[in-house]
Amino acid sequence: MLRTAKIINDPVHGFIHVPEGRILRALGHPVVQRLRRITQLGLAQFVYPGAVHTRFGHALGVLHLAEEALLSLSRKGLAIPPSTWEAVLLGALLHDIGHGPFSHSLEGSILPYNHEQISQALLGLMEAELGDLSEVRLLWENQHPLRFLSDLISGQLDVDRLDYLVRDSFYTGVQEGLVGTERLIYTMNVAENRLVIEEKGHTSVEKFIITRRFMYWQVYLHKGVLGSEWLLRRWWEAYKLEGKKRSYLEELWKLPLEAALPEFLQLDETTIWQWIQASSDSKFPPLRILSRALLYRVPFKVTFTERASATLREGWQHTLSSALRPWAEWFWIEGLAENQTYSPQAGGEIRLLRKDGTTAPLSELSPWLQPLESPTKRAFVGAIPAASLESLRR
Amino acid sequence: MLRTAKIINDPVHGFIHVPEGRILRALGHPVVQRLRRITQLGLAQFVYPGAVHTRFGHALGVLHLAEEALLSLSRKGLAIPPSTWEAVLLGALLHDIGHGPFSHSLEGSILPYNHEQISQALLGLMEAELGDLSEVRLLWENQHPLRFLSDLISGQLDVDRLDYLVRDSFYTGVQEGLVGTERLIYTMNVAENRLVIEEKGHTSVEKFIITRRFMYWQVYLHKGVLGSEWLLRRWWEAYKLEGKKRSYLEELWKLPLEAALPEFLQLDETTIWQWIQASSDSKFPPLRILSRALLYRVPFKVTFTERASATLREGWQHTLSSALRPWAEWFWIEGLAENQTYSPQAGGEIRLLRKDGTTAPLSELSPWLQPLESPTKRAFVGAIPAASLESLRR
Amino acid sequence: MLRTAKIINDPVHGFIHVPEGRILRALGHPVVQRLRRITQLGLAQFVYPGAVHTRFGHALGVLHLAEEALLSLSRKGLAIPPSTWEAVLLGALLHDIGHGPFSHSLEGSILPYNHEQISQALLGLMEAELGDLSEVRLLWENQHPLRFLSDLISGQLDVDRLDYLVRDSFYTGVQEGLVGTERLIYTMNVAENRLVIEEKGHTSVEKFIITRRFMYWQVYLHKGVLGSEWLLRRWWEAYKLEGKKRSYLEELWKLPLEAALPEFLQLDETTIWQWIQASSDSKFPPLRILSRALLYRVPFKVTFTERASATLREGWQHTLSSALRPWAEWFWIEGLAENQTYSPQAGGEIRLLRKDGTTAPLSELSPWLQPLESPTKRAFVGAIPAASLESLRR
Amino acid sequence: MLRTAKIINDPVHGFIHVPEGRILRALGHPVVQRLRRITQLGLAQFVYPGAVHTRFGHALGVLHLAEEALLSLSRKGLAIPPSTWEAVLLGALLHDIGHGPFSHSLEGSILPYNHEQISQALLGLMEAELGDLSEVRLLWENQHPLRFLSDLISGQLDVDRLDYLVRDSFYTGVQEGLVGTERLIYTMNVAENRLVIEEKGHTSVEKFIITRRFMYWQVYLHKGVLGSEWLLRRWWEAYKLEGKKRSYLEELWKLPLEAALPEFLQLDETTIWQWIQASSDSKFPPLRILSRALLYRVPFKVTFTERASATLREGWQHTLSSALRPWAEWFWIEGLAENQTYSPQAGGEIRLLRKDGTTAPLSELSPWLQPLESPTKRAFVGAIPAASLESLRR
Repeated sequence: MLRTAKIINDPVHGFIHVPEGRILRALGHPVVQRLRRITQLGLAQFVYPGAVHTRFGHALGVLHLAEEALLSLSRKGLAIPPSTWEAVLLGALLHDIGHGPFSHSLEGSILPYNHEQISQALLGLMEAELGDLSEVRLLWENQHPLRFLSDLISGQLDVDRLDYLVRDSFYTGVQEGLVGTERLIYTMNVAENRLVIEEKGHTSVEKFIITRRFMYWQVYLHKGVLGSEWLLRRWWEAYKLEGKKRSYLEELWKLPLEAALPEFLQLDETTIWQWIQASSDSKFPPLRILSRALLYRVPFKVTFTERASATLREGWQHTLSSALRPWAEWFWIEGLAENQTYSPQAGGEIRLLRKDGTTAPLSELSPWLQPLESPTKRAFVGAIPAASLESLRR
Repeated sequence: MLRTAKIINDPVHGFIHVPEGRILRALGHPVVQRLRRITQLGLAQFVYPGAVHTRFGHALGVLHLAEEALLSLSRKGLAIPPSTWEAVLLGALLHDIGHGPFSHSLEGSILPYNHEQISQALLGLMEAELGDLSEVRLLWENQHPLRFLSDLISGQLDVDRLDYLVRDSFYTGVQEGLVGTERLIYTMNVAENRLVIEEKGHTSVEKFIITRRFMYWQVYLHKGVLGSEWLLRRWWEAYKLEGKKRSYLEELWKLPLEAALPEFLQLDETTIWQWIQASSDSKFPPLRILSRALLYRVPFKVTFTERASATLREGWQHTLSSALRPWAEWFWIEGLAENQTYSPQAGGEIRLLRKDGTTAPLSELSPWLQPLESPTKRAFVGAIPAASLESLRR
Repeated sequence: MLRTAKIINDPVHGFIHVPEGRILRALGHPVVQRLRRITQLGLAQFVYPGAVHTRFGHALGVLHLAEEALLSLSRKGLAIPPSTWEAVLLGALLHDIGHGPFSHSLEGSILPYNHEQISQALLGLMEAELGDLSEVRLLWENQHPLRFLSDLISGQLDVDRLDYLVRDSFYTGVQEGLVGTERLIYTMNVAENRLVIEEKGHTSVEKFIITRRFMYWQVYLHKGVLGSEWLLRRWWEAYKLEGKKRSYLEELWKLPLEAALPEFLQLDETTIWQWIQASSDSKFPPLRILSRALLYRVPFKVTFTERASATLREGWQHTLSSALRPWAEWFWIEGLAENQTYSPQAGGEIRLLRKDGTTAPLSELSPWLQPLESPTKRAFVGAIPAASLESLRR
Repeated sequence: MLRTAKIINDPVHGFIHVPEGRILRALGHPVVQRLRRITQLGLAQFVYPGAVHTRFGHALGVLHLAEEALLSLSRKGLAIPPSTWEAVLLGALLHDIGHGPFSHSLEGSILPYNHEQISQALLGLMEAELGDLSEVRLLWENQHPLRFLSDLISGQLDVDRLDYLVRDSFYTGVQEGLVGTERLIYTMNVAENRLVIEEKGHTSVEKFIITRRFMYWQVYLHKGVLGSEWLLRRWWEAYKLEGKKRSYLEELWKLPLEAALPEFLQLDETTIWQWIQASSDSKFPPLRILSRALLYRVPFKVTFTERASATLREGWQHTLSSALRPWAEWFWIEGLAENQTYSPQAGGEIRLLRKDGTTAPLSELSPWLQPLESPTKRAFVGAIPAASLESLRR
């Protein structure tokens, strides 16, 4: 147990202890403070207006759950050295530093790297001030000798998932996302160097799996949320083509990751929103319309459908005025929403610990979950209604 | 009861009905959608990281509570005509449209008008699309013939206060702000054309008064919150002096209110944050330092004190390097935090309704609240610590 | 909407309106007040000490949800005549009046009738004071011309189930039971005279099904709960054999239902507990031991097992002292815990309403739920440990 | 930190750790298990039907908060020896064992001792099984050398009060009772061997004081609750006069405390309810009527009044039939409800700890609380309405 430097009030978990030393310093670092300007769920707030929470709050929540888990394991007799204890908390706090504006919506669109790669790079940057962080890296890469600590930070049942389910549920108001984090953490244990759940937590684990599924369809892949995210993505395409920062973005894209970091750190959501505002009078109609659609909340209207999308598109296209028809492709989307509730790939299977010390995989103990192991896919199409386009165009 | 057009999930109140017609249209209006980019509590999130909620969510909450109150009064036999019902809901939804970025922190600094004046002006603007809104104006100005409806929208116990206490409590995690809104609304009644609370709601009213007090010292006038808001205000002074938009802001200030509105509507918090980012390399040291202090969260460190502030200031000033000393006045603040828990001025007194139909003022029934009627004032000073300034300066 | 007579504070749903007239009178009737002395979950409080809630609270909760559902359907344009509205609320409030002490644990053991039969009989009794209740009877027997109202009161998704899941979850502290009742009620609609859920409530219905499953294994069929309920059942057997009220109970059993009612109404849980206390000095060892086991909370220790129970029993029996061995059969149980999460038998299938007005059964739209349609059975054995028996015996 | 033996799910605080050893054994002791049959709030459930919680749940809650407080103090560097740690937890768990049926309502009516005296005596009884408990006695009697631990167990801000405010609030549904227990516990510290609250918890302490006041008028001294408790007390008088156990109760009253304990331990609420049931056909009209009034929930109707009670009584008495008039005194009550929100008597003052290490009493720092230091008294009268009496009489 590290000595507390600071207590922060979090509406989801209550009071969160921040230990003194490197964790406190990491919290104050610009790379972490920047997460205050990155929302956790991007434009899901177009559907759930309460869901304006940030990656910063999430990072604190993951820190908190990681400490709770360490405490719980300690009570069961596991001795974790203080330096490793600190590394685990750092690994929790920093796990998402590589996210850019609107998190997943624009991931891979600003820089040709995913957020894990950027997190790794930023970790390097932070070592200048925090000293060696190689143990954090081991945790992130599943190479820590205490493998169960890697499981805790990035596994099927890690503190990241535990926090975001509860937090997103809290802020959206979607009760379906409530998970018994406390119970899951109390039933964590270690077997063969891996994190396992004691058998008495069996129902809690099932609940956790199912909750993820519910949150996917209720929030992350909700029609209105898809329609909002795609609005942003379309806007981004238009902006890269005709926005004022076009050449800047082209340059940025070509830079090696290390070199791109300083610019990347400036690119938070307030920046993007300013570009959106500045483009709301663009002469390029798609950019102008999409900018205004973002400012005034006019998302793509999305339908899950099995019908041929060409017919649907034609139907919609007929309703467009002649002024809009040439730009139709900008306001029409087609895609596939996909969710795999639980993927017990090699190495990632959740295991339950029996009282006799043996373990068994969840999929064996809960055969009814098996249908959820194959991904669910739902085709969708979406469009901005003609009338809305017309009023946004002017 | 108006027919529902849409149901919105709100984490604070649950499902919120949005009636069809003018209320739905008002909700989609750019003037209201802009509130998504105005936080409710400005930089209080520097202390309470969860408190990133927006004026938009608050507007929905007030709409909801107004409808609950109308339903409750209807069940007691009061007949409210549908057009007035709609006006009340519009008055609730739109009551805060005049707020600018960071709400109260910069109020009166961007335009020489307070937010009520701007709300009035924007209401005029909205009439172009929504038709005559004069009944809303009557409600806001306490001139509605059904005076109790004005009380409901802007009185000592109005739905605005009810919502913000619960909402701010929910998002900060400060349990002290929980008010029994449901009970207060169920005990509302009308006497002599004014809104009153039935005697059985006596404790709930006392609780409401006390809760406001607690929220003031726990949140609105919290040392860390004061230190964060003043950081922003100091930054604004520096920006008006040496920022890139200096002349633009000077022009804006001089415009008549009507003429200033289109520009004002663009000025949401994303704009200000971009100005902050853009100033973080300014050559003017105060602007550069204050910009970075905002980006990296280094608020003024505030102390409530009765000692002579000159001595305190000198003590702090001595710790500054010679490079910083010339700019010292930028990083030092002095002020007075003031809170009047309950102000039963002429006309504004909360009255309780006895079973025999007579009413009595709260201050008579709850003499123990009287000490709270005189404002509490606490002098404070604040500074950014020298070491922080030094590292921000470079 | 009926005029409110009384508002009752319920910790689960908040304020509950009790309409004036027959509903208020029904609430004050001894048959309903008696439910204050019948717990909702019997001896589940041996495992979940907070779960001491009563059938009375549940009855109020069901009343409340029924009214919420009627309001929601009204907002969608369904006109329900006031007398039917009242019948629905009465049907909700009274649905459980036939439960005896410890509800399901002793059902069929005191009188040779199940609780529905007793409810029907008591309804007749209440007509003396409340007047004709035949419409309530129609609702209970699924014969009401507005069939969807029967569905609301006793169907796969009725207000009884909605209330008990949330209420049992609230009082046990088991978060797994939280159901989005509000959302389910808002998405209720009517198609072909049956209650259906609008498609946008699809996830909520899935959640509801799954939640029932979780509550079964987490609470209703929890090992410790089974062990406590069986303790009570074994005690009842011993008491019928050697308790002081033996002949009284034999007489009671033989009476026709109507004639047995006055006695049955006296038999609440306080009576049974007194019999338990009075038997704690019985000379018949099983009765004495089981009485004390109830008073001091020493439940059967239950194991779910697939091994041959004879072997397990022998193992346990060997640990008994010679004084106890002759009574061994009293302290050993074997049984089958069975739970069918969702049973879409003829007529009972939950149907979802699409936007085009067609409906589809849940099992078609959620194929992943199909494994849950076949009942899950788990064999168990249980015993009171020898050491406990020894100390209880003396 | 003691090793956990068992985790219990509590709806108020979440999971509660029960340490192995003497605390686990104390929990299973008949004296503690008996608290399952003693409700926390007696007949307050006549007004708040959800409030059926027991002293057993409260005892667990106090145990939990005591451990939280010990952990918090440890994190601040206080070293508490394991045996003292255990004594504190035992002192918390057992603090209410001396309560009889309906707690305060019948306190001093069954035995001529208050519940603290009985607790002390029962503690002696438990030493037979648990070994020496003298350190617990020191804690209870404010004589422990670590005086701050006595403050924690029985002081102005002890864990008993903290738990019952939150718990009663949770079960009644009265939101006014929510106290920030977590915050109060996190700001506890020690100065001059006494328990103090750090200055940053100032508002939380104010909130705690005010909350007690609210709970008094909203719950403990609520008119309907007073009318229910007095019903029980009147019944008890009638029962002692004409009930079947009259001579038994007379004997019991005369016994020395030690000798009375075995009988006292049998006297839980299920016993009293059986006596009530058995008296509902008594030939003595007051006993018969009062028994039925308890079974069917017909409390005294209470009015707070400043008028001369004799006039009020006459008015009511006139409405009685000639059959009832001779018994009128049984159905009329007069009394004084009294509440002292905060009583900073010698030694009991709450003190706040400043950052400079000095302390100051709360009443100095919060002068607005001073009016609450003098007790509030409200005279009341109550009666059972004539019509109710008439229907109960037959």
